[in-house]
Amino acid sequence: MSDWQIDTRLVADSVLLAVVDGIEVRAMASAPWPWLILVPRVSGAVELFDLTPAERAALMDLACRLGERLRHEFAANKINIAALGNVVRQLHLHVVARHEGDPGWPGPVWGRTELPLGDAERSERLRRLRAVAGD
Amino acid sequence: MSDWQIDTRLVADSVLLAVVDGIEVRAMASAPWPWLILVPRVSGAVELFDLTPAERAALMDLACRLGERLRHEFAANKINIAALGNVVRQLHLHVVARHEGDPGWPGPVWGRTELPLGDAERSERLRRLRAVAGD
Repeated sequence: MSDWQIDTRLVADSVLLAVVDGIEVRAMASAPWPWLILVPRVSGAVELFDLTPAERAALMDLACRLGERLRHEFAANKINIAALGNVVRQLHLHVVARHEGDPGWPGPVWGRTELPLGDAERSERLRRLRAVAGD
Repeated sequence: MSDWQIDTRLVADSVLLAVVDGIEVRAMASAPWPWLILVPRVSGAVELFDLTPAERAALMDLACRLGERLRHEFAANKINIAALGNVVRQLHLHVVARHEGDPGWPGPVWGRTELPLGDAERSERLRRLRAVAGD
């Protein structure tokens, strides 16, 4: 048993799609960019180096599998994979599909205040991200 | 033998400090944030998933070792580790030490146009980054 609990801000911002090898796969479903976040269920982890090598390899391998699927599903030009955590310290890894000319391109997505997707777009985005996260 | 060549924009922006397991450790020596970039000498690699699992593990393990040293050397509040590549596609991994209240905090460092360090500050920064990158 673990005393791990997800940060409430991650819950507010994202939708749980799957749990793979003890890692939550969550969708930032309202963002203009196709965007997953991966949250290892490891108590107290803040930095990537707080994980064991095996936990880190599992996280990065999952990020790469999902990144490759995201690129295919959304015909992305580039996948951004990042552990920042300046705002929410609980370790979480961003996997974001980028397109030339998307909002903020070629700058980073974090901290931007783009308009969120409308309800119909959000449902469609979530459907496609679920497919990416599925087996 | 490999036909790998480093992107000229990475050369222009950074200083080579060391080569570890076929990975260049370079310093963004003029940036206001303590900042390393790691460039695997792997021809054609753009995404983290273009590496073999062994190459990726070596890269992430190095990023974590250096990230932990950066945190200690600069008493950082958070380490940002990211593979973006929207501008320069050749695979490179950023390892950046962040402090609460540093330029742009808590936003990301990329794409910001902060004043570069002066000559004296740059020399001192480079000396400390060399120590972090050294054995």
